[in-house]
Formats: sequence, structure tokens, C-alpha cells
Amino acid sequence: MQLRQQLQRNLPIIIATVVIGVIVGTSSALLSLFLDHVEHLFLGFQESNRMPVNLDASAIHRGLSVIAGGILAGFSWYLLQKKGYRPVGLAKAVEGQRMPLFRTLAHVLTQIFFVGTGGSIGRELAPREAGAAFAQKWEDFANQHPALTLEDDDKRLLVAAAAGAGFAGVYIAPITGAFFCMELLYKRITPRAIAVSLTMSSIATMIGALVKGYVPYYLVSDRELSLRLLPYVIVVAPLMGWLGHLFGRAIKACSAKRPHQVKLLVLFPIVGLVTGLVAAVYPQIMGNGRGLAQLAMSTTAPSRIAIVALFFGLVAKPIVTLMTIRFGGYGGVLTPSISIGASLGVLLGMVYAIIVPGIPLAQFAVVGAVTFLTSSQTAPLMALFMLFEVCHLASGSFLMLALAAGLSIAVNKWLSAASN
Amino acid sequence: MQLRQQLQRNLPIIIATVVIGVIVGTSSALLSLFLDHVEHLFLGFQESNRMPVNLDASAIHRGLSVIAGGILAGFSWYLLQKKGYRPVGLAKAVEGQRMPLFRTLAHVLTQIFFVGTGGSIGRELAPREAGAAFAQKWEDFANQHPALTLEDDDKRLLVAAAAGAGFAGVYIAPITGAFFCMELLYKRITPRAIAVSLTMSSIATMIGALVKGYVPYYLVSDRELSLRLLPYVIVVAPLMGWLGHLFGRAIKACSAKRPHQVKLLVLFPIVGLVTGLVAAVYPQIMGNGRGLAQLAMSTTAPSRIAIVALFFGLVAKPIVTLMTIRFGGYGGVLTPSISIGASLGVLLGMVYAIIVPGIPLAQFAVVGAVTFLTSSQTAPLMALFMLFEVCHLASGSFLMLALAAGLSIAVNKWLSAASN
Repeated sequence: MQLRQQLQRNLPIIIATVVIGVIVGTSSALLSLFLDHVEHLFLGFQESNRMPVNLDASAIHRGLSVIAGGILAGFSWYLLQKKGYRPVGLAKAVEGQRMPLFRTLAHVLTQIFFVGTGGSIGRELAPREAGAAFAQKWEDFANQHPALTLEDDDKRLLVAAAAGAGFAGVYIAPITGAFFCMELLYKRITPRAIAVSLTMSSIATMIGALVKGYVPYYLVSDRELSLRLLPYVIVVAPLMGWLGHLFGRAIKACSAKRPHQVKLLVLFPIVGLVTGLVAAVYPQIMGNGRGLAQLAMSTTAPSRIAIVALFFGLVAKPIVTLMTIRFGGYGGVLTPSISIGASLGVLLGMVYAIIVPGIPLAQFAVVGAVTFLTSSQTAPLMALFMLFEVCHLASGSFLMLALAAGLSIAVNKWLSAASN
Repeated sequence: MQLRQQLQRNLPIIIATVVIGVIVGTSSALLSLFLDHVEHLFLGFQESNRMPVNLDASAIHRGLSVIAGGILAGFSWYLLQKKGYRPVGLAKAVEGQRMPLFRTLAHVLTQIFFVGTGGSIGRELAPREAGAAFAQKWEDFANQHPALTLEDDDKRLLVAAAAGAGFAGVYIAPITGAFFCMELLYKRITPRAIAVSLTMSSIATMIGALVKGYVPYYLVSDRELSLRLLPYVIVVAPLMGWLGHLFGRAIKACSAKRPHQVKLLVLFPIVGLVTGLVAAVYPQIMGNGRGLAQLAMSTTAPSRIAIVALFFGLVAKPIVTLMTIRFGGYGGVLTPSISIGASLGVLLGMVYAIIVPGIPLAQFAVVGAVTFLTSSQTAPLMALFMLFEVCHLASGSFLMLALAAGLSIAVNKWLSAASN
């Protein structure tokens, strides 16, 4: 092929990768700062891996924060949608459906705001949506400049990669961002997709790290998963494959029935109220699930208090999260999945530890999280590398993680085929 | 779908995954032991990450070992092929071409034998070929039992996964094995492929680790790649993308012209002679390249001796390796690629360190290796996770590795398209 043709074909995606990487990285960094700001304002604390939820705030303070958050976020989503606008899902955005920039950003900020006040939903959908919206804007701009205009398939790739980079910039996890792009959105893993998504996620991660630092999102006392987990993985991964599959289906069902107009205005404050009441006595319900997941990962012994706390979270977290979606809210489901999987993983691990002692309980939390997330998202590579990256695990952990994700997705695919 | 149909479709691949995982893991472990045995016999040492080549043996001992190895391996390959048999490549095996088990095993053992005596070629093709051959044997057996018979596409997947698992069992690297299967052989990354290849590679790794332990294949003093490598990566990754592309093409050209019959018998001893003469004065040329790569990764300061040693290896290793293939030998090219990339990476890093001091030179070796390997194999994910796993890097290293692999594959794809 001629150099000129080569340039015409490749230069636009190279330029777009770098430009969008910088824009999305900046957007994710700003969203991280916005979240910090809301948390500081409403809950009076600075979130970190050592303190994922504010245990120092009074019960009334916590409850009121989430209730106020629910009322305000519900009102914001009502205003956004009352004239017929509906937030555009990422899958549709990748297929070319337009995301209007300002309304998307308002929608994104509403999500982060609600999580910041303590609402129970993931914060990772927002930066992904912002990323995809910026990528579409770039495409509009590029369409007017022949040297920058992208081919159709590259447009799909760019939007998917920008969504993944949005994730990478918030969670400081470049590999996860790349697999999020390829496994869940672009649905193909080609050398071109790898080049674009890895590079863009890396750029966004670097910019995000300027704000959040390069520290683990979850603190795990022991970063190397023991080979003695093997029998546990073989038994628990298929179980989690089944439960994650059910949770994934429940999310879909709740999303499909989500109200958008006046009904939302009436129902959504109930989400705030219920979450707020739970949060008053059980702060780990608040936010994206980091609090509950960290509780699971920090559990060191099977005390009665720990069992009650984890069991309560395990039951309450999926209910409150599904309710948030069912009653009109939007947000991510990755961290909620991690928190559910980690809680159940530790509870089952306490039983396993009676037979095979000596494994730190945190390891069961990691295995539970990766297996539940793999199946609820149908994305084993993303799940495996997400836990690896956000916990800063050691490379020896790959073996147990890989087996766990492999078994979980096998059961998930079986169930998915059976239910069709 | 009915449970019965589900079982019919999934049970054969589940059983095959576990059975072949165990068989291939055992095969890889035995090949590791065979290599140890040959090295002990011919070179009188026990290979390890601290001592990848025998520096204690005399120059004459080293030279004679490789010369003898060349004569014997050449004779073995001549005998194998004189009646028209040709070793079946992995790509063709995945497509269904039969690998006769005993001849394949003889071919596999010849490869390991030649590397064990000091021959300059990778040892990772052999366990992959053994894995693929065992998978085909299983398919033959399964064809006679309706409950075990695999669908056509699952047959392709099984052979590809078994080849990847063969790698995983030797290098104790499950993720790399899975991506080797999906990226290079099966050429698709689907949930089914992930489930099968991750699970099988994990099983093989566990069995391989019983023999080789769970220790890094390369010792890297500093397991976290510094963000200060960024400008280096941006400049060096595209350069390596170009050089790796050239090396990949050279390998293909040499493979195509490889002699198979009497000519091989005449030419191959020359490979042994040349390698042996070099090995007498420069032991790092011996074997798969681990010695040269470890030399690069262990270099701590830009001394004159280090520069000369690395530069010599950088020139001699590709020549001797290509000559091995061109004159009739078979073997892997992953570790040779790593050693070339690592040597050049360190040499360029010494220049970079003058401008940006304070980065341990080992980090340049890792970046050089991953970028060169990415492009020479056209497999960024495998390359990235291979370096991560064999060096036991820390998770913070993903950022620089991802960017490096992304940029290298981008240049490679550009060049590949341009040369078509």
C-alpha cells in the first residue's frame, strides 16, 4: 500500500487516540475531584482506601446526607428527562447513537453527586459515559476535516476505547480499561483495538494518577493468593458463576422497568430514604460498595460481629442497588458486584478455613469478587484484571484468579445458553 | 435449550479441558525435567534464574557441548524427516492437520535436547507442540465415544488451548498461556475460549510448578516500572515495533527455506560449530536466550564491559538463532526475542539515563523485551503478560507495559499493512 494511503488510514486514529486519551484522562480526574468535593460537603470526610466510608459521622448525619442526595438526584434526573431525553447507553453509543454533550455531562454529574452523598450505586459508569460523549464530539469535529476523518469501524472503536479510558482514569487501572473496551463494548480483540485501547487507557491513567496517586483502591493485607485456595476456587467459582448470572439478569430487568418522568420524581426519594435509613446504622451500604468490599477484605477473623456485618451487607447491598436502578437511578454495577462477591467470598471462606486453616480471609474476598464480577458482567478478562489492578496483587496471584474467572464464566455461559 | 442438549454441547469440552490440562501439565513438567537432565549431562550444571548459563564450565567444554548437540540434533531431525515426514506447525495443527504422536514427541525431544546442550533456540515451541499433539490424540479417542465427541470449532479451541497450556506449564505463566492460545492460534477471544484456555493453562501451571516451583524466570531487582520511563517508552516502543517486525519477517523467511533432508545433515552441524565457537568465549549465546536476557536485566551500570557484552549479544543472538532455523533446526522464538529486546533496551536506556537519571537499568530491559516481543510475534497481550509473569512484576508496572505494547503493535500493524 502507498504511504499516502497508509497515512490516510492510520493518522486519524493515532491523533484521536492521543487527543481523546488526554481529554478523557482530564475528565476522569475532574470527576474524581468532584466526587471528593461532594463527599466533603455532604459527609465531611476525605475518602481513601483506609477510610472508604465515613464512620465518624453521626447516624443522623449519614441518613440525612443520603436522603437529601436522593431528593436532589431524583429531581435532577427528572428535569433531564421530562422533555423526552433518555440517557444513551454505552452499547448504543458505540453503535453510533448520539450522546448530546451537555445533557450527558449533567447526567454524569448527577450520578457522581448521588454516589458522593452516599447513594448506593457504582461511580464508574459516569466517567465512561463522559469519555464516550467526548469521543463522539471529536468525531463530529473530525468529520469536518478530511485529514482527521475516521472510518466507521474506527469510530466504534474510538467510542469504546474512550469509555474504557474513562474507567482507567478513575480507578488507575489501564489494563482493566482496555479490556472493558474490548470485551464489553467493542466486542472484538484485534491488534488495532489493543493498540488504541491500551494506549488511550494508559494516557488516561497517567492523568488520573496525577489527582488520585498510584495507590491501591482496596487494601489487601496479603497480595499473593495462596495455591491452597484451589479446592475453594473449584467449589465457589461455579456457585458465584450462578449467583452472578442471576444478579446480571436482575440488573437488566430493573433497568428495563426504570421510570423516567413524574413517576421517577415520586419514587426516587424513596431510594434515598431507604438507603439513608440503612446507612444510619450501617454506613458500608453507602456509595459504590467500596466500604462493604473493604470491610470484607479487612476481615481477619470469623468473629460474630464480622459475620453479622458481612451477611447484612450481602443481603442489603444488592437490594438497595437494584432498587436504585429500578426506581429511576443510573450508575455503575462493577463495584456493587465486587462488594457482594467479596462479602459472600469471605463468609464461605470462614467455613473453608475450618478445614484448611492458614489462609488470610482477604484472599477469599478477592476470589469471591472476581468470580461474582466475571459472571454478573460476562467479562472474565476485565474482572480478573480489575481485581488484580485495584488490589495491587502480586503476579503469583494470576494462577488462582485465572482459574476462578475461567470456571465462573464457563458456568455463566452455560446458564446463558440454557435460558435462551 | 434443554438440559440434555446443554450437556451434550458442554460436557465434552469441560471434560477435555480438565483431562488435557492434566496431561499437558505433566508433559511440560517432564520436558522441564528432561531439559535439566540434558544440561546436567552436557554442561554439568543446574539452570536457575541466578545461573541461566554455566559460566563455570571451561570454554572447550562449552564449545564441545554445543558442537556435539548440533551433530546429534541434526542427525535426529534428518532421521525424522528422511522419509518425507515434516513437523506439523501449530497453526496447521489447530486447523486440523494431524500430528503423529510419536514422531511429534521425537521432534519435541530433539528441540529440548538441542537447547539443553547449548543450542541457540527457544525451548517453548516444544511443550506447545507436545500439548497440541496430546489434544489431537484425545480428540481421536473422543470421536469413538459419542458423549465425549467435540464440535469442530471446539476441536480447534482444544488444540490451541493445549498448546498455550504447554507454554504455561513450562514458564509457570497461566495468563500468557491463555493469550498465546487466543491471540496467536485460535485468533478469537470469546467467553468460551477464555473459560477453556484460562482453566487449562491454570491446571498445567499448577502441575508444572510442582517441578519448577513458583519462582520468577528472570530476576529483576526492581519489580515496579517507573513512570519516569514515559518519554523512553514513547521513543523506543515504535523503534522496537519496527525492528521486531523485521525480525518476525526474517524468521518467516528462514523457516520457509529450512532444509529437511540430506542437506540438513550437512548444514546443521555448522550451526553447532558456529554456536559452539561463539559459546566458548561468550556463554550467553547458549540456550534460548535466558542467559543474554538475564545479563541485560542484571546490568546495573553502563560499564565498558557491560556495553561490549550486550552489544555483542544483540548482534550475535539474532544471527545464530536465525541460522539455526535456516539450516534446519526447530524451536521457539519468544525467548530469543526477549533477549534481543532486553539487550537493545538496556543499551538505549544507558543513553536515556544520562538525561533522566535514577531509573534502574533492568527496567529498560523489560520495556525493550516487551516491545520487541510484541512486534516480532504480533501478539501484544501475550508479550505484555509474558514479561509481567516471568519477571513477577508489580501491578503498578502495567501502565508502562501497556503503553509500550500498544505503541509497538501500532507500528507493527502499520508496517505489515504497508508491506502487503
